[in-house]
Amino acid sequence: MHEPETPTIATETQVMFFDTDCAGVVHNIAYLRFIEVARTLLAEQLGMGLVGMSERGVYPVVVRTEIDYKRPAKLGDKLVVHGRLESIERSRFWITFEVKRPSDDALIVQSRQMLCVIEMPQARPVALPKDWNTRFPHLKRVRNQTLPVSTVRPSQV
Amino acid sequence: MHEPETPTIATETQVMFFDTDCAGVVHNIAYLRFIEVARTLLAEQLGMGLVGMSERGVYPVVVRTEIDYKRPAKLGDKLVVHGRLESIERSRFWITFEVKRPSDDALIVQSRQMLCVIEMPQARPVALPKDWNTRFPHLKRVRNQTLPVSTVRPSQV
Amino acid sequence: MHEPETPTIATETQVMFFDTDCAGVVHNIAYLRFIEVARTLLAEQLGMGLVGMSERGVYPVVVRTEIDYKRPAKLGDKLVVHGRLESIERSRFWITFEVKRPSDDALIVQSRQMLCVIEMPQARPVALPKDWNTRFPHLKRVRNQTLPVSTVRPSQV
Amino acid sequence: MHEPETPTIATETQVMFFDTDCAGVVHNIAYLRFIEVARTLLAEQLGMGLVGMSERGVYPVVVRTEIDYKRPAKLGDKLVVHGRLESIERSRFWITFEVKRPSDDALIVQSRQMLCVIEMPQARPVALPKDWNTRFPHLKRVRNQTLPVSTVRPSQV
Repeated sequence: MHEPETPTIATETQVMFFDTDCAGVVHNIAYLRFIEVARTLLAEQLGMGLVGMSERGVYPVVVRTEIDYKRPAKLGDKLVVHGRLESIERSRFWITFEVKRPSDDALIVQSRQMLCVIEMPQARPVALPKDWNTRFPHLKRVRNQTLPVSTVRPSQV
Repeated sequence: MHEPETPTIATETQVMFFDTDCAGVVHNIAYLRFIEVARTLLAEQLGMGLVGMSERGVYPVVVRTEIDYKRPAKLGDKLVVHGRLESIERSRFWITFEVKRPSDDALIVQSRQMLCVIEMPQARPVALPKDWNTRFPHLKRVRNQTLPVSTVRPSQV
Repeated sequence: MHEPETPTIATETQVMFFDTDCAGVVHNIAYLRFIEVARTLLAEQLGMGLVGMSERGVYPVVVRTEIDYKRPAKLGDKLVVHGRLESIERSRFWITFEVKRPSDDALIVQSRQMLCVIEMPQARPVALPKDWNTRFPHLKRVRNQTLPVSTVRPSQV
Repeated sequence: MHEPETPTIATETQVMFFDTDCAGVVHNIAYLRFIEVARTLLAEQLGMGLVGMSERGVYPVVVRTEIDYKRPAKLGDKLVVHGRLESIERSRFWITFEVKRPSDDALIVQSRQMLCVIEMPQARPVALPKDWNTRFPHLKRVRNQTLPVSTVRPSQV
């Protein structure tokens, strides 16, 4: 038996002026836009496409973000965001991200986000698709189960 | 007889890191956030309050922006945005803005925006409030009427 | 004799949540990020690459923006920004942009930006590259020369 | 003997259109701008004023952000960001934030950020001001010392 699939995504971006600040490097908030692009395309791959969801009034929402800034990126840098479905619970899931700069193989940013799916405008949480349990059995977690330390807290600066 | 009122607003902001870029000055897009704050408060004063409008599904939308960047502002600068209702038509109106830096009285940015009011989700234009004609008779313009050159095109760099 | 080249660019983007606002459509400021991406790549094509310029402390800066919002775009829309070098003066140049939605061929936004090149931190204007005069003779304008009306003011909503 | 001072800050903001997204609520990234304003003013109070620092080429930089989204905020909401210096190490410090909506006393967002001070353009870390040890002895932590669980992980949704 082989390991079941783990959904991943990789998206590219180039640092623009509006991503930087006057310290000469990419502003900390800009990485969250880069990550949102990767997250959105990964969600689409998981059956949560932007258009379909918004038409039904359901949206994946970020419930928690953890982000570690490891090295600065600069104007013009070409970056790749790698996203991976990390774990799933009954109504929530975690995605991990790494932002890398292929030119020197630098790890720029590590991040994890917990998401749930809500129905608007009531903001009512919706259960995750049932087939996720059979598609991703290796990623199932019980709520609030402790994750390995290395996952919870990426290495520090 | 005195001139009828011309609605104005003045809002203050301090330049944050996220407003600047790696050229060391405020990024051109950031000023449009500063201006949106002033515009929103001026709209509220005109009876188009954020909360009430969004509950009714009607929104003032920007149809055109003209903005001239006169002098750079920097991290930590305290700026004031002065907004003024410039003219009104049947279903559209113009607001003018000046962003100034009181510490040296510098004019940083000049801008004008044309707005109309639309009903969502159909995006259908809505007529301006009827009492605007009596409140602001001195600001009435016929559609596409040419404005004085000095108003259309602020002085150049 | 044939017409000399006119530099153009086309960049693609997909509308993300962070591009939209609670009126359900793309926020007016977001288009200026889309346009900056196109402008940056067009500038690179013109010999003003991001990396090289910032290392020399010279930057193309936006001196004026005009932007007309023609139709709303929505979450998930795939948009194309078409940029074109419109005219050049001694130390300034204009670029025009159209944001289109290929799926229904809708024109979403029209814009023009005037740029100059400055040397930081003194913010001193720098003359445009000399070879632009020979490469783009058909785009030369005398300062403040009136452009055809259709160019100055795109058709209104 | 009384407890030494713990620096705190409270800043107000009103939710603008550009802070929201098409799910009808404040976008997750927007809160990080709200928090940056509070952080910047708290840093100023701690002797790290924006202007002075950028002139010396030293900047406080965010090394890690943790943020929990507890309840949605909406267009027009008036929010208060409460910031507090949580702990200090030799060259890093943590600030905690709560974003609240006074109108219904709702807790909207909880966040913590770890910062260090770096000297640009080398991106070299700089030791924290020496007087912090005597001003804030109750906040001193040894590097990587485990914090009480309630501080590390705010209550979940």
